Amino acid sequence: MVKTAVILAAGLGSRLRPYTETRPKGFLQVYEHTSSLIEMSIQALLENGIEKIYIGTGYKNNYYDNLAQNYDEVICVHNPQYASTGSLATLLSIYPFIKDDDILLLESDLLYDSNGIRELIFHKEYNVILASNPTNSNDEVFIEVTEKYQLVQLSKNLNKLRKSYGELVGISKISSSLLHDIAQYAQRTPNVSSLDYEEALVALKSSAIFVHKITNYTWCEIDNEEHLDFARKNIFPRLQLLNTPIKRNILLNPGPATTSNSVKYAQIQSDICPREQDFGEIMRFITEQLTGIVGDQNEHTTTLFPGSGTAAVEAILTSVFGENDHLLIVHNGAYGKRMKEICDTYNINYTMYNSAYISPLDYEDLEQFITNQQSITHLAIVHNETTTGLLNNLDTVGTLCRKHSLVFIVDAMSSYAAIPIDMKKQNISFLAASSNKNIQGMAGVGFVIAENNHLNALANVKAKSYYLDLFSQYIYFKKTNQVRFTPPVQTMYALKQAIIEVNLETIENRYQRYTASWEVLIEGLKQLGLKWIIPLEHQSKIITAIYEPEHPNYDFDTMHDTLLNKGFTIYPGKVGNLNTFRIANIGEINKNDIEHFINALHDYFRKAKIS
Amino acid sequence: MVKTAVILAAGLGSRLRPYTETRPKGFLQVYEHTSSLIEMSIQALLENGIEKIYIGTGYKNNYYDNLAQNYDEVICVHNPQYASTGSLATLLSIYPFIKDDDILLLESDLLYDSNGIRELIFHKEYNVILASNPTNSNDEVFIEVTEKYQLVQLSKNLNKLRKSYGELVGISKISSSLLHDIAQYAQRTPNVSSLDYEEALVALKSSAIFVHKITNYTWCEIDNEEHLDFARKNIFPRLQLLNTPIKRNILLNPGPATTSNSVKYAQIQSDICPREQDFGEIMRFITEQLTGIVGDQNEHTTTLFPGSGTAAVEAILTSVFGENDHLLIVHNGAYGKRMKEICDTYNINYTMYNSAYISPLDYEDLEQFITNQQSITHLAIVHNETTTGLLNNLDTVGTLCRKHSLVFIVDAMSSYAAIPIDMKKQNISFLAASSNKNIQGMAGVGFVIAENNHLNALANVKAKSYYLDLFSQYIYFKKTNQVRFTPPVQTMYALKQAIIEVNLETIENRYQRYTASWEVLIEGLKQLGLKWIIPLEHQSKIITAIYEPEHPNYDFDTMHDTLLNKGFTIYPGKVGNLNTFRIANIGEINKNDIEHFINALHDYFRKAKIS
Repeated sequence: MVKTAVILAAGLGSRLRPYTETRPKGFLQVYEHTSSLIEMSIQALLENGIEKIYIGTGYKNNYYDNLAQNYDEVICVHNPQYASTGSLATLLSIYPFIKDDDILLLESDLLYDSNGIRELIFHKEYNVILASNPTNSNDEVFIEVTEKYQLVQLSKNLNKLRKSYGELVGISKISSSLLHDIAQYAQRTPNVSSLDYEEALVALKSSAIFVHKITNYTWCEIDNEEHLDFARKNIFPRLQLLNTPIKRNILLNPGPATTSNSVKYAQIQSDICPREQDFGEIMRFITEQLTGIVGDQNEHTTTLFPGSGTAAVEAILTSVFGENDHLLIVHNGAYGKRMKEICDTYNINYTMYNSAYISPLDYEDLEQFITNQQSITHLAIVHNETTTGLLNNLDTVGTLCRKHSLVFIVDAMSSYAAIPIDMKKQNISFLAASSNKNIQGMAGVGFVIAENNHLNALANVKAKSYYLDLFSQYIYFKKTNQVRFTPPVQTMYALKQAIIEVNLETIENRYQRYTASWEVLIEGLKQLGLKWIIPLEHQSKIITAIYEPEHPNYDFDTMHDTLLNKGFTIYPGKVGNLNTFRIANIGEINKNDIEHFINALHDYFRKAKIS
Repeated sequence: MVKTAVILAAGLGSRLRPYTETRPKGFLQVYEHTSSLIEMSIQALLENGIEKIYIGTGYKNNYYDNLAQNYDEVICVHNPQYASTGSLATLLSIYPFIKDDDILLLESDLLYDSNGIRELIFHKEYNVILASNPTNSNDEVFIEVTEKYQLVQLSKNLNKLRKSYGELVGISKISSSLLHDIAQYAQRTPNVSSLDYEEALVALKSSAIFVHKITNYTWCEIDNEEHLDFARKNIFPRLQLLNTPIKRNILLNPGPATTSNSVKYAQIQSDICPREQDFGEIMRFITEQLTGIVGDQNEHTTTLFPGSGTAAVEAILTSVFGENDHLLIVHNGAYGKRMKEICDTYNINYTMYNSAYISPLDYEDLEQFITNQQSITHLAIVHNETTTGLLNNLDTVGTLCRKHSLVFIVDAMSSYAAIPIDMKKQNISFLAASSNKNIQGMAGVGFVIAENNHLNALANVKAKSYYLDLFSQYIYFKKTNQVRFTPPVQTMYALKQAIIEVNLETIENRYQRYTASWEVLIEGLKQLGLKWIIPLEHQSKIITAIYEPEHPNYDFDTMHDTLLNKGFTIYPGKVGNLNTFRIANIGEINKNDIEHFINALHDYFRKAKIS
């Protein structure tokens, strides 16, 4: 992960006089009462995990030196030749301090949405230049790219490019290896002192420098009064919007989950036709990243469906079985039962393996069952049963499937993006999940992640559904970067942002956060004398089904409404004839929220005189 | 439609001193540079079609009298007894001027989202009080309602209510009939001068006064310094957000269409579990209103599906046919063909009636075809073929279906909410549409509107799809106000807002707006020598398929990219072996936008030396 940033801030800012007569450009404020550009930039970098920020100073460097005293993380490096050198010289003066680091490289006169930083940090390539659609600032640097989005040329003159792909923002991710190449390039190049760093990038374009474009990226460079006016009217209000608070509800239902404000605001975009190339690239990013969470991007592929998670499960069940196939459904919860119902609707050849909802699977018995049913070709299971929070063991069942040559299908709706899954190791061929649970996006997209060989083999299988035809959707997207039927455009933007955030957190840390919340929950339930239906060691730590108190004063609706008034949404749920309710500790919440919830629950119990 | 508003502004505002020492409460400004509360309110009323605004003045009435000089629509009526009377007396002093009018009644100290006004204006009931979730302002008036959401009681004391449904905002819609009752009530009631208008409403609750609650409504009353602080921190920024500009793209592709900013911002909501009652009410509102656009809310029902429009078509085709049924598909475009493909997937018994894509149906020939095929029980047709813009005549085909006792199924994807449809008159039993075309919402919801008897009869038909099972979804929603599978929550909020806006515009005016745009388009095409494939009199005036110029300099991609750079998105399209492209003049755009588009198109033609 990138931990170092470099801000190039040596320039004179002469086009911004009189603002820059007394101070360098980075100290410009959009309004008198707002932070300076450089302070906003430092803030954004620190919030995104940057630990060291080198500022290359020149003109009026004492401003930066003073600022650095407020931040342990900021180090100023002075380029005394600033008045006669370009930005490359400033970068080179910092090079000795950063030569072993991958860095973010920024210009000092930018007002920008910090999402741009996040997207670069999590971009899979090592050298990435951030681009946007044209800003029409009359000072644009246009970018030409190859078909693979690698840098070809940068120029302010459109005629010097074959075609412009986007506009240079002035934020880049540079690997230590490319930094080294830049230093080498400088040594061998005459008149290097007058060059800007962009020229070095173009000269070194053979080093796999990628361009990442964010459609409708919120940013501007402030180089003159006109830019400042544009920033005031267009960019600053939008950045304010992205920081406008939204009343926070704690959803403890099993999804849709509580989302971050940045995911919510990601829905606010200029209108776009989803068949446009820009949108195709967004969906391609989404599919690749969703794949990467559980699989290998070269061996697995994600296929998106506009709809709920059930649509994704149904897409698998209606698309993968040939005439001689025979599915075994492992059934120990409502979602196992739902697979049965889907199979009944489509007359799919299946056998049920029924197991108690409230106790773990007997894997030996399951194997015996499979051994006795020689015709079985596929096995489907729900990973984390939303009904109860019972976690089925994918390692064990995956091994079983491998041993008995069964195609393994997993409904990972309530586990995906929280509990680590490794499709290859666990021998999973088809996996279904959705946009609105642990991935922490908005509802509206179901998706199937599948192993490529199995997916390609579906060319020979007649799909039983038209809308949910997995193979057709897969092939269509592969060819066009489009889904067959209109996608939920804004939900896709939210999903993209949710992916950026899960990458930032990592699946491991997310599951640790969920687990910490769950531990607080269990402790609180204990204190109230409440009992859960699944033994602790078999729980997913994501959703907990709890026995309702057998007390005349207890009433679910009253408890629900009381808690809802305090901002907590809990969820009813019956398991067979057991009376339970459910608490899911997923989404953008943490153990403090669960502590507050437990306090509110205690409060209800005390006031209702239940315990 | 309500055209008159009354603002009660006589009070002393004593809790807001020193602010109100020099001016009445309505003249409070959130910040020094912002408009006063009363000016913001007047603005919001005028923008929503209010033509006369009566302000009931008292304390420092000269402020209002001066303000009224700036607005032709504002009339001040002074209540000289303001210091010793309640708000009812102020209302009564205005009564003689408004007694034949339905009115909006507002308090003067409100800072509020103008959507609240819109929702009252378009509420189907005549007397409606606006409510919100509790604001925790410590000055709340709570509301108790019946099961049908009729007013029971208002009180600041929660103990005086059986249960609080919400908080009174202070904006109501009052019919002239209820106004009359209020005047009568005042005549027969002792000590009336001290009463507030709310007390009269409670006394007259038998007059069918409904309470309309907006979850997370953005508003506050400003009665003291604490409220002012709350307004500054929480309400004003959110209202600013709702007014933050978003870069406007003109989408000329056939949906998703350009949307209003208010539809976009409607997606920004606190997180909610879609199985909560509040959300169920939103979906109920949506289904009722969608029904009302083409049908009778007592005889037709809308069923929502998370997914695209095709999902809705597939829901019909997989749900309505019994074993002995036989569908005739009228096929004269790509979407007729899509129905065939769906039927093939599910082995549905169907016959095709094929007609040329580029010329109108021969209805006599169609009738002859039906007469010759005695087994046919259902007929399905696409109303406005998105492929070409060819409009099929629902009146004629509906009459045909009635005569031959066929169940009539219409794919109204590209016509619904623009071209007036009357399901009853046109004999339509099942109609499919989606959230992202002429209704001007976001993509993600497909829906089926059906005649209730036909819908109920599906109890005896085995559905061929699980996810798209129309009858199950219908019954489940009827019982629970929930959809079976997780709905796209934020898309539903956007759809609700889109419905409010189409109600405001009316279908007739929307189609007039589209038609005016289309006329400008056709005129512009003529000037360029471009030709359309469908004779003008058979076009839907919604989407136009245009022959590509046969000129060596012409290139669709270049034209597309050139126009895209100027903010216009056009759409490719081949009709058989005819080379065409398509322009849809739908969404939140008008004839000026089309004029600008035509100019940009001329520009491209001139520069490329095509014409």
